[in-house]
Amino acid sequence: MNSVQLSKKIGGKIEVKPKKRLTKKSLPVLYTPGVAEVSKAIARNKKLSFQYTIRKNSVAIISDGSAVLGLGNIGPEGALPVMEGKAVLFKELGGVNAFPIVLNTQNTEKIIEIIKAIAPTFGGINLEDISAPRCFEIEDKLKRCLKIPVFHDDQHGTAIVVLAGLINSLKVVKKDAKKIKVVISGAGAAGIAIAKLLLKYGIKNIILSDSRGVIHRKRKKGMNWAKKEIAAKSNPKNFRGTLKQALKGADVFIGVSAPNLLDKHDIRKMNLRPIVFTMSNPVPEIAPNEARKGGAEIIATGSSEYPNQINNALVFPGIFRGVLDNQIKTVSDKHKIKAAEALASLIRKPNRDKIMPAVLDRRAVKVVANIFKF
Amino acid sequence: MNSVQLSKKIGGKIEVKPKKRLTKKSLPVLYTPGVAEVSKAIARNKKLSFQYTIRKNSVAIISDGSAVLGLGNIGPEGALPVMEGKAVLFKELGGVNAFPIVLNTQNTEKIIEIIKAIAPTFGGINLEDISAPRCFEIEDKLKRCLKIPVFHDDQHGTAIVVLAGLINSLKVVKKDAKKIKVVISGAGAAGIAIAKLLLKYGIKNIILSDSRGVIHRKRKKGMNWAKKEIAAKSNPKNFRGTLKQALKGADVFIGVSAPNLLDKHDIRKMNLRPIVFTMSNPVPEIAPNEARKGGAEIIATGSSEYPNQINNALVFPGIFRGVLDNQIKTVSDKHKIKAAEALASLIRKPNRDKIMPAVLDRRAVKVVANIFKF
Repeated sequence: MNSVQLSKKIGGKIEVKPKKRLTKKSLPVLYTPGVAEVSKAIARNKKLSFQYTIRKNSVAIISDGSAVLGLGNIGPEGALPVMEGKAVLFKELGGVNAFPIVLNTQNTEKIIEIIKAIAPTFGGINLEDISAPRCFEIEDKLKRCLKIPVFHDDQHGTAIVVLAGLINSLKVVKKDAKKIKVVISGAGAAGIAIAKLLLKYGIKNIILSDSRGVIHRKRKKGMNWAKKEIAAKSNPKNFRGTLKQALKGADVFIGVSAPNLLDKHDIRKMNLRPIVFTMSNPVPEIAPNEARKGGAEIIATGSSEYPNQINNALVFPGIFRGVLDNQIKTVSDKHKIKAAEALASLIRKPNRDKIMPAVLDRRAVKVVANIFKF
Repeated sequence: MNSVQLSKKIGGKIEVKPKKRLTKKSLPVLYTPGVAEVSKAIARNKKLSFQYTIRKNSVAIISDGSAVLGLGNIGPEGALPVMEGKAVLFKELGGVNAFPIVLNTQNTEKIIEIIKAIAPTFGGINLEDISAPRCFEIEDKLKRCLKIPVFHDDQHGTAIVVLAGLINSLKVVKKDAKKIKVVISGAGAAGIAIAKLLLKYGIKNIILSDSRGVIHRKRKKGMNWAKKEIAAKSNPKNFRGTLKQALKGADVFIGVSAPNLLDKHDIRKMNLRPIVFTMSNPVPEIAPNEARKGGAEIIATGSSEYPNQINNALVFPGIFRGVLDNQIKTVSDKHKIKAAEALASLIRKPNRDKIMPAVLDRRAVKVVANIFKF
């Protein structure tokens, strides 16, 4: 059965279920009059809401439908099935009760206000499929004013899982992170977040590129404040040109952008033993077969059809399991690097066809959640 | 185990559960890449969200914590356990996936804007425990601008269940609705909604009273626009005085107000075979025992400890089951009266100790939902 057939059959993919059955005996305990005592206790001490209510283990998956998968701005209704799928992964992998909230506005300030208002229901906020650079502003402002963790998975989940894959890939090709050149195609939420995290990890030579070519400090066209910010931190030699030109001498290509941008000739221009993460979904920047013809040593995609699937499902369930269980307010860069290292460590002896744990590897949640214990 | 102990043990009372298990095979159907086809179909035709997503069977239970049970303005965190309990009833009785959303604002305009924004997630909106007269404005404005049903249960659920009880009570005491005098104590969401529905049902002589006494057209103190509106429609002789004075010659007392307002002497002043619905919770306006001493023929309360429990759990699960299944946008006064009559009809031969079906009587959902079929 395909996804549309399944949706026709079952409607939504998640349901709300009571933990206790309703009986004549349980009714006054679950609801009035008994529940009044719980309400009074929490009204006296609001922190008890993190122990006595769904806040203890619930996350809102919030999207405005402005950047859904590779489909673009399809609106909240169109985004909802994706958020439901994500809720399934949250529960099945992380044991987290995640509920989708899709928003009928794409006004940044309104989105911030709405999330602030609904926050008392939740133990954490997972932002999803919100277009850049709005997503950066929304996350930053919410982090500053909310007392619960806010995590934009398209940014940080992706950055963490990419770093994990890169750590193991560098082991395979025996290269030093400090000395490699990385070219990232895509300067949206994922591309910029990946660049930031790789910089924090110690990679010095990173070039980002978008549909108008390489991002450099003098570029005027197609820039926004987030691209300007990353331009100042990346591309140390201030290289100007196209994505294809930038690939010359690169050790790593990371694609989070658009289908069919590259061919084997572009890979041949890269350094020896090139690492190619071609993650545009469902159609990658370069087909794995083509990348292999170009001499790519390690090829990873976003798809389960090939070896080395790089999927943030390996990350977000463990991140939220960890922050909820340990009441962590902020997922820091240190946490992110630790999470990537923990994920990478699940592969004892990485090889070109095995740099990542399988998406449904249950150990992933555990090792990621555990980094928040200390 | 009492409610606080249970909350300590299990945290929240509800969980989000996948309808399909996550496996290597189901993952690409439930989530990417398969889900993209569902998203694209809905983006082309937004109405499909009512078939393909949780919207088909999901309701938001929304409160700002401003009028929670009899506890007053205890805020969103304190309100959350009540909304969770309500979600349990929604699912167990009506098969509806209801998710609580408690709001960290009590600004009427902001609440309206937030609910408008999150509406694409849901098939219906259940407003809960929002103080009067704000609740009337919020509901009215939302009804006008949203394409999904909006139902403030404290108003309409209560009014419907009270009318159901009254229909059967009048059969027992053999009185005609058109000729009775009804005194309602309480002019908040419930009291005003009850008065409005009883008027629509054809009861002509209704007097409302609040903590400052009877509401009449010349009263200035402690009024608001909603009280003024109901003053114009009720109290036809424009009686001035106290609640106790108003009870003289009344056939029915309906209490949705505060504990311990009346004693047996007040009941004695009522007409022959008085009907007393004393529903303040957990402590009623008059203890059932005291009302009996005063000669009350029929006594109903909000509590399961006595016969004749009047509880809107008999109403809202069926209302939402009906509107969701039949894609009804507005619950009209006709619907409400039909729902009350349907509920009342479940008791073949009402008697003084049996005017209402039991709260967990599964037939209630069915007959209430069925009224939306035509």
